[in-house]
Amino acid sequence: MSVRRRPLPIATGRVELAHGAGGLATWQLVDEVFAPAFAPTWAHWSSQGFTTATLDDGVVLPAGLVPPGHRLVQSTDVHVVSPLFFPGGDLGVLGVHGTVNDLAMMGATPLTLTVGFILEEGLPLLDVQRLARSVGEAACAAGVAIVAGDTKVVERGKGDGCFLAVSGLGHVAPTVQLSARRARPGDVVIVSGTIGDHGVAILACREGLRFETPTVSDTACLVSLVAPLWDLGDDVRVLRDPTRGGVGTTLNEIAAASSVGMVLREDAIPIAPAVQAACELLGLEPLSLANEGKVVVICAPAVATTVLACLRSHPLGRDAAVVGEVVDDATCTVALRTPLGGMRVLDWLMGDPLPRIC
Amino acid sequence: MSVRRRPLPIATGRVELAHGAGGLATWQLVDEVFAPAFAPTWAHWSSQGFTTATLDDGVVLPAGLVPPGHRLVQSTDVHVVSPLFFPGGDLGVLGVHGTVNDLAMMGATPLTLTVGFILEEGLPLLDVQRLARSVGEAACAAGVAIVAGDTKVVERGKGDGCFLAVSGLGHVAPTVQLSARRARPGDVVIVSGTIGDHGVAILACREGLRFETPTVSDTACLVSLVAPLWDLGDDVRVLRDPTRGGVGTTLNEIAAASSVGMVLREDAIPIAPAVQAACELLGLEPLSLANEGKVVVICAPAVATTVLACLRSHPLGRDAAVVGEVVDDATCTVALRTPLGGMRVLDWLMGDPLPRIC
Repeated sequence: MSVRRRPLPIATGRVELAHGAGGLATWQLVDEVFAPAFAPTWAHWSSQGFTTATLDDGVVLPAGLVPPGHRLVQSTDVHVVSPLFFPGGDLGVLGVHGTVNDLAMMGATPLTLTVGFILEEGLPLLDVQRLARSVGEAACAAGVAIVAGDTKVVERGKGDGCFLAVSGLGHVAPTVQLSARRARPGDVVIVSGTIGDHGVAILACREGLRFETPTVSDTACLVSLVAPLWDLGDDVRVLRDPTRGGVGTTLNEIAAASSVGMVLREDAIPIAPAVQAACELLGLEPLSLANEGKVVVICAPAVATTVLACLRSHPLGRDAAVVGEVVDDATCTVALRTPLGGMRVLDWLMGDPLPRIC
Repeated sequence: MSVRRRPLPIATGRVELAHGAGGLATWQLVDEVFAPAFAPTWAHWSSQGFTTATLDDGVVLPAGLVPPGHRLVQSTDVHVVSPLFFPGGDLGVLGVHGTVNDLAMMGATPLTLTVGFILEEGLPLLDVQRLARSVGEAACAAGVAIVAGDTKVVERGKGDGCFLAVSGLGHVAPTVQLSARRARPGDVVIVSGTIGDHGVAILACREGLRFETPTVSDTACLVSLVAPLWDLGDDVRVLRDPTRGGVGTTLNEIAAASSVGMVLREDAIPIAPAVQAACELLGLEPLSLANEGKVVVICAPAVATTVLACLRSHPLGRDAAVVGEVVDDATCTVALRTPLGGMRVLDWLMGDPLPRIC
């Protein structure tokens, strides 16, 4: 566009209501903060004729993105994590990972993202820029283009810095049959690494807790970790990223959807020492804590060794472990066998021990 | 799912943090409030094998939704309107209309929506249900399926009742060439009806103002209004819904994108008497007020009569009028000719006279 005014005072300025009014200030925010942060994500599209120069709230995608026979896959997440910036990540990367991971769990290659920012009046523009850059960098790393966006501003005290909505579009091969309804007795339950890292990192950051080993969020893009599993056929039943509610709630959802039970071995579940210590100190159940870079795999015993080898060959999956099995159980109970041989029920998360974890 | 607990106390209960924790309470909210409200939108999909029984955060779409040769179109909006319920609509219908209208302005037939709710702790569950039903009903009326969703809850005082993110997917025929960059000197500027209705309705509702004629938001699905224009070929250059920032900002955006100027005739612009009165009373510029059910059409003079007839034959377009023309102007100025023959510049919206209008 040919309109040109005084540049935004990014280093010292703050979000004003005008930035959400849809007029010149909104256009400037898009032009000077969002578009530069997201433009790198369009780079790998240019060969396909996709050359949008400004980020609008809608876009026509280039033809030929979806391979013949593939189905479209959509997912969406809203993120309200507090604080906005935490060890290992921030709201921006979390939002991108959340949505591309949802697509990957359905066996889909992510193609595009749309983003919606709800900003609170008074948020430093530098924070907006930092979050926008995080979104752009995480999207580049995940190989997705950010193709459309929207920004609104609410008055001071009517929001909390920034909330982020991210929707994704991907495509899945016709051979992929992943579903939470496909677990069956005899199947193996695998987790790709240590659990509860994100939950404890946020909690420690929020409460100013320190542990011997620093706690860092595991937020990560899981596409390259799970993509090899898409090709293993029907024997891979379910992929799920155990975010809010943790591994416990995820397994309960799968058990209920598939009308089966599960038995886990407590001492097989990988937990980082700092997370274990934090959970003991604070009385938290690590299996109910959020993960943002882990996957739960349910598969037939025939492919368990292959799945484990696949996961362990990837930097994000080197602590992958078989943690239990699927059993015939009409009550759909997820049970945990303790090291001393006792059994306890692992229920759905009740209440909210850690609000605004993602 | 086989899990069954005490039903949610929808009539008397309020949103709690647990409803956003991803555990049992979240699942109940989806199962008892969102799924029943959105299920009717899946009805016209059932013939295509689409039978999702619960609303998850991701979905594989049935094959064959997109006609051969059509391109995919995406759009996204976040809505933060205050108050949540207003004369003529609410946050829910506004969110659906906003996104399907964005698709329609690009010439696209809307297919699916994803929705993200950010709820504030303490919001009555009845309000959540009312908003969810509005979303479902507006989606049904627009012929789109709500295929995925997400809900988060923020603490009391960290939000404002409910914010809504809506993303849409549609498809556009290869012959459609609409773009804000296609206006050229000599083209005609048409608006589909009275302007500023939404802005004044929200303002009056918020401030407790009363006018002789009640002011009601014009929020509406514009798909059936503009679909006949998609087939008129290259002579229809631009379709835009002048929401935030109003007709004035929309025309400035088009002028800048197309490197042209525009001259409007002030007395040709349709304005409802109550809106006119409110603007005079409060010193507001009607051309800067938000519309949620109007379209601006830029077209070649050759098809202006056809476009006008098309619009006027639809209940949402019966006040359609030619309001000006596109002119050669390197400064990209949008000017307004007053009834007395004077000229004034109609600039981009500056500041934010009406925060949280949508």
